[in-house]
Amino acid sequence: MKIGIFDSGLGGLAIAQAVMARLPAYDYLYLGDTKRVPYGGRSQETIHEFTSQALKYLFERDCQLVILACNTASAEALRKSQQEYLPVNYPTRRVLGVIIPTAEACFEDGPVKRVGVLATLSTVESNAYERELLRQCPSVSVCQMGAPLLVPLIEHDGLKYAGPVLDDYLRPLLGAGIDRLVLGCTHYCLLKDEIRARTLVPVVSQDEVIPEKLADYLLRHPEIETLLDRSGCREYHVTDITMAYSRFAEHLLGGPVELQKVVLG
Amino acid sequence: MKIGIFDSGLGGLAIAQAVMARLPAYDYLYLGDTKRVPYGGRSQETIHEFTSQALKYLFERDCQLVILACNTASAEALRKSQQEYLPVNYPTRRVLGVIIPTAEACFEDGPVKRVGVLATLSTVESNAYERELLRQCPSVSVCQMGAPLLVPLIEHDGLKYAGPVLDDYLRPLLGAGIDRLVLGCTHYCLLKDEIRARTLVPVVSQDEVIPEKLADYLLRHPEIETLLDRSGCREYHVTDITMAYSRFAEHLLGGPVELQKVVLG
Repeated sequence: MKIGIFDSGLGGLAIAQAVMARLPAYDYLYLGDTKRVPYGGRSQETIHEFTSQALKYLFERDCQLVILACNTASAEALRKSQQEYLPVNYPTRRVLGVIIPTAEACFEDGPVKRVGVLATLSTVESNAYERELLRQCPSVSVCQMGAPLLVPLIEHDGLKYAGPVLDDYLRPLLGAGIDRLVLGCTHYCLLKDEIRARTLVPVVSQDEVIPEKLADYLLRHPEIETLLDRSGCREYHVTDITMAYSRFAEHLLGGPVELQKVVLG
Repeated sequence: MKIGIFDSGLGGLAIAQAVMARLPAYDYLYLGDTKRVPYGGRSQETIHEFTSQALKYLFERDCQLVILACNTASAEALRKSQQEYLPVNYPTRRVLGVIIPTAEACFEDGPVKRVGVLATLSTVESNAYERELLRQCPSVSVCQMGAPLLVPLIEHDGLKYAGPVLDDYLRPLLGAGIDRLVLGCTHYCLLKDEIRARTLVPVVSQDEVIPEKLADYLLRHPEIETLLDRSGCREYHVTDITMAYSRFAEHLLGGPVELQKVVLG
């Protein structure tokens, strides 16, 4: 049983590492489209095209389950991808996103009136979080904030400049009286401490949510092989390699990593 | 006579506008690869592949001269592109970059000992500026600084946060005693006032250099048709369109602009 984890770039490694730590017995194939990262500002059509190529790649390499560990891809391409891989036609090609489980986590610690969502521009424009939060809890209200500078700051050693940027992005959300804050981009896990230091509101960070949700999903689907007591393989495929990418991957995974360059599309 | 202007994204519009203002009689076709922007962190192989597709596109649409208005593409792909379109085989397919004319401009206002270059990571890693500056003036010394956060700050309304970032990028250059500063990325034209406010060293900004250099090139090549007394056409082609891209293009061109979505590669 091999699990595919797809992200537009390397930010998904933060989620991947947390998932692999929680469920170490499975084999994992990580795919990062570093040749075309970031997806966050692109059109829905383009994001769907790229995601579709990634899914084809991962399924052809025997992944039975693929996690779109990228909020932009989950927001813009999950539904269409799940329609392309209907379980009735492809029983061993499942696609999961990160938005549904993240929204679920918002409602697990007591009543919620107003959820704040910090995300990339295209995730915000897709309204995917608002739709999913309202589906799960029709009485909730949702405030979204596009935060296009956070990914570059995280990727390019800019955390020391993030303070005033975070203050400006958070001010309208906190001013609107939110009682939960969703970090709606996998990269933002790396800023969760700085964000928590700025608010008393509970913060939902995907590296803390997705591993448990995936473990739960596997339990609820007994037709999927449950693996224990082995140590799975990990492979890391990317569509472009540079020194900076290698350093960032090692930083995220906390040690040496072998990135393999592959072709998509 | 149609001139092609290519950039990885929309930053090249700053140069394009300056060129079109200086030489208004020519027809212009601008191409921005917004589906895969930014190029600045990608590998040389990938940048050459993308640039090659762009040149093919522009030449097939009757451009007789293409300016790579992107320092990353000029640094990583110009020489190879010029070899692919040798004048002996393709007399009407010329490719010009922005690095040679920018380096020339460094030496036009008196003696220079040490040039500072602010650029994207991949332009710095290519050493293209250092090579060209030394070719033109073997006694000069060159200090480079990669500035990966400036493009995102410019593209995502982050100029108000740029102060401390600029201070940190400029400190090592100014500390090294430079007597010229090259802004080695077309986007940086948009920060030239903030940069000039931080130093007494003459700053070479490409929107001020490239139009004159191109006018001069056209004069020196009488085989290229000289156009006067007409108002040329302008077309703007991009590989992806979003609301944010349209707004940024209008901001750069100072008015409404019709972006046309096209397919590359």
